[in-house]
Amino acid sequence: MPMNVTANVRPPNQLGQGMFMDGILVRSTVTNERFVDDYLLYLMARASHAISSEFHSTLRKAGVSIPVWRVLATLSGSPGETVTGLAEACLLQQPTMTKLLDRMVRDGIVKRMPDQRDRRVVRIQMLPRGEQMVRELLVSAKAHETEVMARFPSVDRMQLKQLLRAMLTKPPRARRSAPAIIA
Amino acid sequence: MPMNVTANVRPPNQLGQGMFMDGILVRSTVTNERFVDDYLLYLMARASHAISSEFHSTLRKAGVSIPVWRVLATLSGSPGETVTGLAEACLLQQPTMTKLLDRMVRDGIVKRMPDQRDRRVVRIQMLPRGEQMVRELLVSAKAHETEVMARFPSVDRMQLKQLLRAMLTKPPRARRSAPAIIA
Repeated sequence: MPMNVTANVRPPNQLGQGMFMDGILVRSTVTNERFVDDYLLYLMARASHAISSEFHSTLRKAGVSIPVWRVLATLSGSPGETVTGLAEACLLQQPTMTKLLDRMVRDGIVKRMPDQRDRRVVRIQMLPRGEQMVRELLVSAKAHETEVMARFPSVDRMQLKQLLRAMLTKPPRARRSAPAIIA
Repeated sequence: MPMNVTANVRPPNQLGQGMFMDGILVRSTVTNERFVDDYLLYLMARASHAISSEFHSTLRKAGVSIPVWRVLATLSGSPGETVTGLAEACLLQQPTMTKLLDRMVRDGIVKRMPDQRDRRVVRIQMLPRGEQMVRELLVSAKAHETEVMARFPSVDRMQLKQLLRAMLTKPPRARRSAPAIIA
């Protein structure tokens, strides 16, 4: 992967040594000494934040807030989402999501509807006004994604997405504590 | 990449068709209709959140808050960080970081020190008490990272990190607007 990774380079005071802690080598790369610069969870959070921030300028220009964009994007192509599902998808707390949806219902962007199969379940659906608001943003978002991936021509976009999907769906605890049915 | 990606599967009402908008095909996968389920930024944010959440139970057990962990992890192996640098690394607003650091200084976990080269710059450094607090967590964090990557044996950890590092360091606007010095 020919990639330019020269930013955030620190003075190499322990060049390529890493630290030993409790017998485990906490690796540091040759150019970086900080623990976080070689820590997957940190790199994922920062990379996600950096790439998302790029798109936020498009949202600002369109006058659409980040939470409203997230709700509309999640409802796009969806037959309807529960409040819990939306909160999860948009990385918001449920009470925050409920208040946000109250405003979006009042603005005629989304509506609350009973689920077709289970009338006790309320689903949020997009209204034409929401679809109109989000249509161009969806196109911009896809164009931005294409632009991002074009920076990494050696990376397979589908494989990267497959990995991310697996990361967000895989339940780590359930697996380990699953009983051995076939002994 | 043999990965199980069966969760979040939705009823295929437009199986594998996708939507055309302004002449651009907004793809949907065969198993998923929602825009976000095939949107890189969404998948990155959700995957990052999911994997980080796994580690948060370890933090809870250790009685260390997420922001304190982030600061201590960022200071680990670092000669000292500015408040701005810490705020960026920890994805916190600068005023929030300043207040957090006030508490951490009061608790004897970190200290404020003038930069060795430029005395006008204040750097935050870890104190022995902070090092003690974070030592085992760093080991747990690395063990967790190894466990996460073990779920994806076909994924090269170094390449994935290289990609994430490039994503978080690459300035997209600067590139495009850079003047052509050699015409």
